Amino acid sequence: MDEFELIRRYFTRPPKRALLGTGDDCALLRPNAGLDLAVTTDMLIEGRHFLPDAEPRALGHKALAVNLSDLAAMGATPRWATLALAIPAADPAWLEAFSAGFYALAERYGVDLIGGDTTRAERRAISISAIGEVPPGMALERSRARPGDDIWVSGELGGAALGLVHPEIAEAAKRLHMPEPRVELGERLRGLARAAIDISDGLAGDLGHIAERSQVAAIVEYERIPRPSVFQKLAAPALERDCVLSGGDDYELAFTAPRAQRAEIESLAAELKLALTRIGTIEAGSGLSVLDARGEPIAHRGGFDHFREGQ
Amino acid sequence: MDEFELIRRYFTRPPKRALLGTGDDCALLRPNAGLDLAVTTDMLIEGRHFLPDAEPRALGHKALAVNLSDLAAMGATPRWATLALAIPAADPAWLEAFSAGFYALAERYGVDLIGGDTTRAERRAISISAIGEVPPGMALERSRARPGDDIWVSGELGGAALGLVHPEIAEAAKRLHMPEPRVELGERLRGLARAAIDISDGLAGDLGHIAERSQVAAIVEYERIPRPSVFQKLAAPALERDCVLSGGDDYELAFTAPRAQRAEIESLAAELKLALTRIGTIEAGSGLSVLDARGEPIAHRGGFDHFREGQ
Repeated sequence: MDEFELIRRYFTRPPKRALLGTGDDCALLRPNAGLDLAVTTDMLIEGRHFLPDAEPRALGHKALAVNLSDLAAMGATPRWATLALAIPAADPAWLEAFSAGFYALAERYGVDLIGGDTTRAERRAISISAIGEVPPGMALERSRARPGDDIWVSGELGGAALGLVHPEIAEAAKRLHMPEPRVELGERLRGLARAAIDISDGLAGDLGHIAERSQVAAIVEYERIPRPSVFQKLAAPALERDCVLSGGDDYELAFTAPRAQRAEIESLAAELKLALTRIGTIEAGSGLSVLDARGEPIAHRGGFDHFREGQ
Repeated sequence: MDEFELIRRYFTRPPKRALLGTGDDCALLRPNAGLDLAVTTDMLIEGRHFLPDAEPRALGHKALAVNLSDLAAMGATPRWATLALAIPAADPAWLEAFSAGFYALAERYGVDLIGGDTTRAERRAISISAIGEVPPGMALERSRARPGDDIWVSGELGGAALGLVHPEIAEAAKRLHMPEPRVELGERLRGLARAAIDISDGLAGDLGHIAERSQVAAIVEYERIPRPSVFQKLAAPALERDCVLSGGDDYELAFTAPRAQRAEIESLAAELKLALTRIGTIEAGSGLSVLDARGEPIAHRGGFDHFREGQ
């Protein structure tokens, strides 16, 4: 199987919203008039983000999911993606499963794979860029939090990080390997939320970015943070705190919204059948504080940083 | 230096044409109304596309150049790029030089770096996506060649492939490491050329794609193909033929145009101070034929394929 046959067989399906998809020098798009474009890129490296024997269907899902999650955090509707893939060999079983995982998620959200690149490398590398559309002025930028805003989070936090430590806990492993990008939530938060971010590097680090770029303080009540019930059984409070505050890979959305929107957000949660939980408030000041039940600050190690010593 | 500091220091310059650049979940763009978008992605892997000790300034240039070349081959004007970068460590000297090479080319063509991802990996990997704009219906798609068209090529072919075999030949090494994307040529060929492709995998393979997608035959006269004068001194006809017909990485444009455009194309060559040479014709039929001075077919090994056995 040569490179072109590989692309034809596994990565070519007729695009629904592109003038031209894979197979030319570039893809050609005609964006909807009057909408802005949101663009994001992520790279996953074997041995760093996934193991060599990672299940390829889950990997195809996750590689796209992390990008759709970035679009969701901007309030954008996903439309198009490109895929650059480095693999050690053209293994049909691996490619078939990877492609199936990718397309299952892509088609669920109407995303066209419009182009890419395939090459050989000893270790796999996957880089995806995704493009979405958002009405002008409606993007949920990190810089838009204001004092008095509530801080909300979707779903539960800490599950993916727990899956790294306890891969035998199926619920946690699923959170790690098959994250669900909060696409509908991101779209519905337009006009309702101010700032948003997806929890990819851990709540503490990610909320810290909102605080920094909005030049405000974020105060979080630790006990309010929703987490998988399995943590209760584990009774390992230090591990739990680390997973909940600093664990990455959950791909839930954290967002801020004026108090006046509480009822709207609660009815949105009911409609989407997705927990949306108020975990704190935005205040004047700077930085992130996490408080325990007595109002005392809890120490945490911040978010994940690929270049920190020792990682 | 942490990941965020690295991005701030080396990969953040204020975008000229984006609402929001690096530093949020996504970049935000407002494309010019009435233009289509061309999107391309390429990935370069250490040990495969470049050596570990590759000069980082040239690498930053080339990683972007190969994407701008794809936009040029579509007739698109480059606007925005994202960069996903995997590196073994945050080495300031390497990053400084890589970033300088990237931005020198980006700023020459008004391209904004609007986002990306940085991560650690044992071997470097670079994936760039680039977005350009093109008026509707004007893209130089591979499928648009028609019988009777001339086949043209810009610049000279074979130099980059020669640089791989003879790195001591400075002129050839420069072609390999610092390719010049033919951006202005691509833009000016709108309305003048029909089909175009950039020579990344070798003339024979790349022209073969035009023939295949346009359902026509491409006939090339080998002696007409422009090549660096150093081949004369080398007097190695088999190597020369392989470099000229099947060598990749030249990033010149091959294009087809109606005979009626000959004078226009020749005056464009004079204006751009870039050789544009007629090397053959498009005919009814299929496939690519390369003919010698007596009109006899020349055997060639086609273009580069990352998944061919033994490579």
